[in-house]
Amino acid sequence: MAMRSLQPPGRRPALDDLDKSIIKCLQLDGRRPYAQIGRELKVPEATVRQRAERLISRGIVQVVGVTDPLAMGFQQPALIGLCVEPGKLDRIAEQIAELDEVTYLVVTAGRFDLMCEVVCEDNEHLLRVLTDRFASIEGIRSTETLVELRFVKESYQWGAR
Amino acid sequence: MAMRSLQPPGRRPALDDLDKSIIKCLQLDGRRPYAQIGRELKVPEATVRQRAERLISRGIVQVVGVTDPLAMGFQQPALIGLCVEPGKLDRIAEQIAELDEVTYLVVTAGRFDLMCEVVCEDNEHLLRVLTDRFASIEGIRSTETLVELRFVKESYQWGAR
Amino acid sequence: MAMRSLQPPGRRPALDDLDKSIIKCLQLDGRRPYAQIGRELKVPEATVRQRAERLISRGIVQVVGVTDPLAMGFQQPALIGLCVEPGKLDRIAEQIAELDEVTYLVVTAGRFDLMCEVVCEDNEHLLRVLTDRFASIEGIRSTETLVELRFVKESYQWGAR
Amino acid sequence: MAMRSLQPPGRRPALDDLDKSIIKCLQLDGRRPYAQIGRELKVPEATVRQRAERLISRGIVQVVGVTDPLAMGFQQPALIGLCVEPGKLDRIAEQIAELDEVTYLVVTAGRFDLMCEVVCEDNEHLLRVLTDRFASIEGIRSTETLVELRFVKESYQWGAR
Amino acid sequence: MAMRSLQPPGRRPALDDLDKSIIKCLQLDGRRPYAQIGRELKVPEATVRQRAERLISRGIVQVVGVTDPLAMGFQQPALIGLCVEPGKLDRIAEQIAELDEVTYLVVTAGRFDLMCEVVCEDNEHLLRVLTDRFASIEGIRSTETLVELRFVKESYQWGAR
Amino acid sequence: MAMRSLQPPGRRPALDDLDKSIIKCLQLDGRRPYAQIGRELKVPEATVRQRAERLISRGIVQVVGVTDPLAMGFQQPALIGLCVEPGKLDRIAEQIAELDEVTYLVVTAGRFDLMCEVVCEDNEHLLRVLTDRFASIEGIRSTETLVELRFVKESYQWGAR
Amino acid sequence: MAMRSLQPPGRRPALDDLDKSIIKCLQLDGRRPYAQIGRELKVPEATVRQRAERLISRGIVQVVGVTDPLAMGFQQPALIGLCVEPGKLDRIAEQIAELDEVTYLVVTAGRFDLMCEVVCEDNEHLLRVLTDRFASIEGIRSTETLVELRFVKESYQWGAR
Amino acid sequence: MAMRSLQPPGRRPALDDLDKSIIKCLQLDGRRPYAQIGRELKVPEATVRQRAERLISRGIVQVVGVTDPLAMGFQQPALIGLCVEPGKLDRIAEQIAELDEVTYLVVTAGRFDLMCEVVCEDNEHLLRVLTDRFASIEGIRSTETLVELRFVKESYQWGAR
Repeated sequence: MAMRSLQPPGRRPALDDLDKSIIKCLQLDGRRPYAQIGRELKVPEATVRQRAERLISRGIVQVVGVTDPLAMGFQQPALIGLCVEPGKLDRIAEQIAELDEVTYLVVTAGRFDLMCEVVCEDNEHLLRVLTDRFASIEGIRSTETLVELRFVKESYQWGAR
Repeated sequence: MAMRSLQPPGRRPALDDLDKSIIKCLQLDGRRPYAQIGRELKVPEATVRQRAERLISRGIVQVVGVTDPLAMGFQQPALIGLCVEPGKLDRIAEQIAELDEVTYLVVTAGRFDLMCEVVCEDNEHLLRVLTDRFASIEGIRSTETLVELRFVKESYQWGAR
Repeated sequence: MAMRSLQPPGRRPALDDLDKSIIKCLQLDGRRPYAQIGRELKVPEATVRQRAERLISRGIVQVVGVTDPLAMGFQQPALIGLCVEPGKLDRIAEQIAELDEVTYLVVTAGRFDLMCEVVCEDNEHLLRVLTDRFASIEGIRSTETLVELRFVKESYQWGAR
Repeated sequence: MAMRSLQPPGRRPALDDLDKSIIKCLQLDGRRPYAQIGRELKVPEATVRQRAERLISRGIVQVVGVTDPLAMGFQQPALIGLCVEPGKLDRIAEQIAELDEVTYLVVTAGRFDLMCEVVCEDNEHLLRVLTDRFASIEGIRSTETLVELRFVKESYQWGAR
Repeated sequence: MAMRSLQPPGRRPALDDLDKSIIKCLQLDGRRPYAQIGRELKVPEATVRQRAERLISRGIVQVVGVTDPLAMGFQQPALIGLCVEPGKLDRIAEQIAELDEVTYLVVTAGRFDLMCEVVCEDNEHLLRVLTDRFASIEGIRSTETLVELRFVKESYQWGAR
Repeated sequence: MAMRSLQPPGRRPALDDLDKSIIKCLQLDGRRPYAQIGRELKVPEATVRQRAERLISRGIVQVVGVTDPLAMGFQQPALIGLCVEPGKLDRIAEQIAELDEVTYLVVTAGRFDLMCEVVCEDNEHLLRVLTDRFASIEGIRSTETLVELRFVKESYQWGAR
Repeated sequence: MAMRSLQPPGRRPALDDLDKSIIKCLQLDGRRPYAQIGRELKVPEATVRQRAERLISRGIVQVVGVTDPLAMGFQQPALIGLCVEPGKLDRIAEQIAELDEVTYLVVTAGRFDLMCEVVCEDNEHLLRVLTDRFASIEGIRSTETLVELRFVKESYQWGAR
Repeated sequence: MAMRSLQPPGRRPALDDLDKSIIKCLQLDGRRPYAQIGRELKVPEATVRQRAERLISRGIVQVVGVTDPLAMGFQQPALIGLCVEPGKLDRIAEQIAELDEVTYLVVTAGRFDLMCEVVCEDNEHLLRVLTDRFASIEGIRSTETLVELRFVKESYQWGAR
């Protein structure tokens, strides 16, 4: 899944082919040295560095260490669908986004108004998120939790094909 | 959201405090030089490098360039919940994971058996995924699409707190 | 879809065959000159004009320019089902009908109490309708949005067959 | 509600202010003479005619007689949500669009895959549509009918504001 | 609840005030002698008899002994909603109507395609209806049973007010 | 469907074979003279009369004129499922039972807490019941209306087989 | 929750007060010696033993060691609701009852046709039950899993109050 | 189904093979004398007694008389799913657990927040639980009752295999 910048759509400067090639390299290995990327793309290291830093500072790409929750001791990740009072959606989204356990949050059209992913250590931790953390947020009409039984795919190599 | 290794749980070697500190640094900035991490944590660069490379090779952390779909021209991301024939779940999950548009896929307990995220350029692209790509996968009983209206949070800094 | 008059049913004067033939002509091409319709139906232009104007003034037919939202820059039309407090349905329907984005609104029996179509420029616009506009309307219990992925048919040639 | 052209999005020529002003006039009264529109907009009748005819031929605006179903003797309009087999959606949409009673049909994301409006004379007519007409279309998994109890709004004056 | 004739609507001869007064008397007490009704309505017994017999023979009113299922030893009445394959609705309705336990059956628009009431002696009897009787009827997609916990109202005195 | 007495179960005196035979005769034709029933069952008319009157006075059988709503001008009957606040169920049931349009009302276990049948003249009448009548009843959480498209069966001859 | 005998209802011999007192003692502590129960109830030990053994042999009470799944290493218990083809319910119930992980299974009226509890070691185990075990059972239309987050109450002291 | 201790997970002392063998014996027959268990497992009676008593006192096993509700006169058991206000879940669970009719209660993830089993004498008793008992508990958003039509399996012999 992909980090998204908060810039309004339409105002983004277009990406050229070199930008896209650099993004592609970083999607495969975020620690690859710029010199090595430069050799592969046949452009000077300085150009790669300048472009990459601009892409990063503009929020188009973000190089991060992505960790495996199970290896970190978080055995019970779950997706939670929420229905909320329309007028409080913005405020509720803000409050949910502040919770440490929430790794992902989107506003959706359909059965749910919001979908989030929480990463919890076990069933009791998941229950505490639902009852203690969500309880203090006013305007949540209902929640429906889908416990994640098995992780199948997470891809960072899309978008530049 | 976090990449997850496919190792069976329970067999993972425990992480010590240094591992966790290195992970924390990479979660904040995946391109941070090991020398700089070493100075902060007061350990030699070689130790940081050795630990980081082991964490990466064991699939506990993955350093990747994470991109903003809107900046890349993908205006219509969506979550799709699927109900499938129980005996075909493994095979269906495999086939869905192979689709380029699918950035995320988990098996869930609850209203849906599978939840995936697809990143599409527009409504027509999303519709083609639903009708052309999913149509060739046998055993899908129903799909329900939740179009993502606004991205709120994606965090990579959890798990090491 | 068809505009409907607000006259109570049962009090409408019956339409004769000439009325129906004129309606049929206007359904196919709303700008067709009355003289041309008269020649086709073998009645004087004055009769066609008189009949057509009565049908229009009585609200049985309405000749309008119907536009393509995509061509006008409205990329995200959606249907929204609403459940509301029974005693507030009339007032809620009135307030929703006042919104510019709402092109269609009916009271329904079944899963939803009201169904409307909104025509929005993009996801953010759709979200603003749901959160800002609907938020100020008291008595809405839930909304469920069905984003329109593809337009298939809109017919104005029914009703006179 | 608005007729939509079947042109792929993105390839449409942009509309200028005169186009939009002419559309606005036709949305209010589709029979308004071009000479009168010309006087209001302070452009020659010939220019209005040429522009209007191009807008019509390109499918951006369609001037039609829109009729009131109740006045025409159609007392039981209804919205029908359908869930279908993904691989058959295109074919099913095509077959439903061919039915005379169907005045409107869109592909949707969410609880239903397709939503259509049917205009029927009475309950028996509506039932025949559901059982006789839909029965011969292969791949429909479920239908859910929302009988329209009261018409509230249908607007053709949007889109040019 | 009311028995309904199978005559097509629209062809029914209108009821006059005397018809309605006689119906009203029979709704209150089906065994009331025609002479007594005649005295109350101030018309000869022969007229009442003739009118009543015509109303009965035309299926507008039916005088029946309505029994209390609990007193008859039927402790578990239930309502069952069914979803069926559209093309088989007529045949399925026919087969369900033939079951002795089914006291009431209507075709509905909405969440269910058919709703029936069954009157059963106990839970095992209800289960046999669902599994044995319904099992032999082809085309039922799903059933959902609502056990009746308490009877509140059944009125035969409506319709003539 | 059957009228039910409000006597608590368990305290009812058992019915003997003669009671059941008399009930059976009245279920077929509620106006059949007791003398005729007596001849068929080979018991004196006085015995039939005494037994029948006791069955009626004890609320086990009720002889009523059952009318066809369509013939009476009620074109739009519907079933309505309601969810209510648990503590207000008794009071709500009482208030709904008082409405003239409600011909049938039961408390149910399952998706709905209450199911009622309303007999309305047309869509506007049905809508007035939902918005005006139900609006004044406090504690209704949701309603879902299933319009009756076709009547299939109503039986009064069960229960004595 | 209580074990239930498979005897048809209605044929059970009535329990007297002594039976009920003995059941009450065993519900509190299943290992309580009969002599001690006899002293408390003021009846000879032999009578208690005879009565208790008859209650056990007739399946009215069953004295068992009930274990805590968490202590036994079963971290992920879940409830599963199933919808099945009506004609296959008996056979499906039989096959599900044979599964070791299934500790409880009932046929239900309502949203689900069957509800079972499964006791699993972890998410992978639960997933194997759903995909491998259930996959070989023909006629299951859908399953919906409710993961148990926290156990609150299980009582064996009811029924004799 | 199994009683669960309220000890936090992770702090439980591990069970050895002798513990598990003793549990297995008690699961089959809770009244089996320790001497007999000792002979079978080839350990002294005193060891069996000491181990069994420790398992019981630590809440890992509980020996109880489990009764058949039908034999005890409870003809209408039911499962009830509840949705509640997140912040009140703990308090609501506590209040429901105090009700005599509730034999089982768990917090669940998914469509319902809580699932309980109630054992009732008949439909009226079940209705009183829903309306009288639940009515006084603040924060219940909805309940959905699944009447148990037939008991299929309840196992106490799992967990030690």
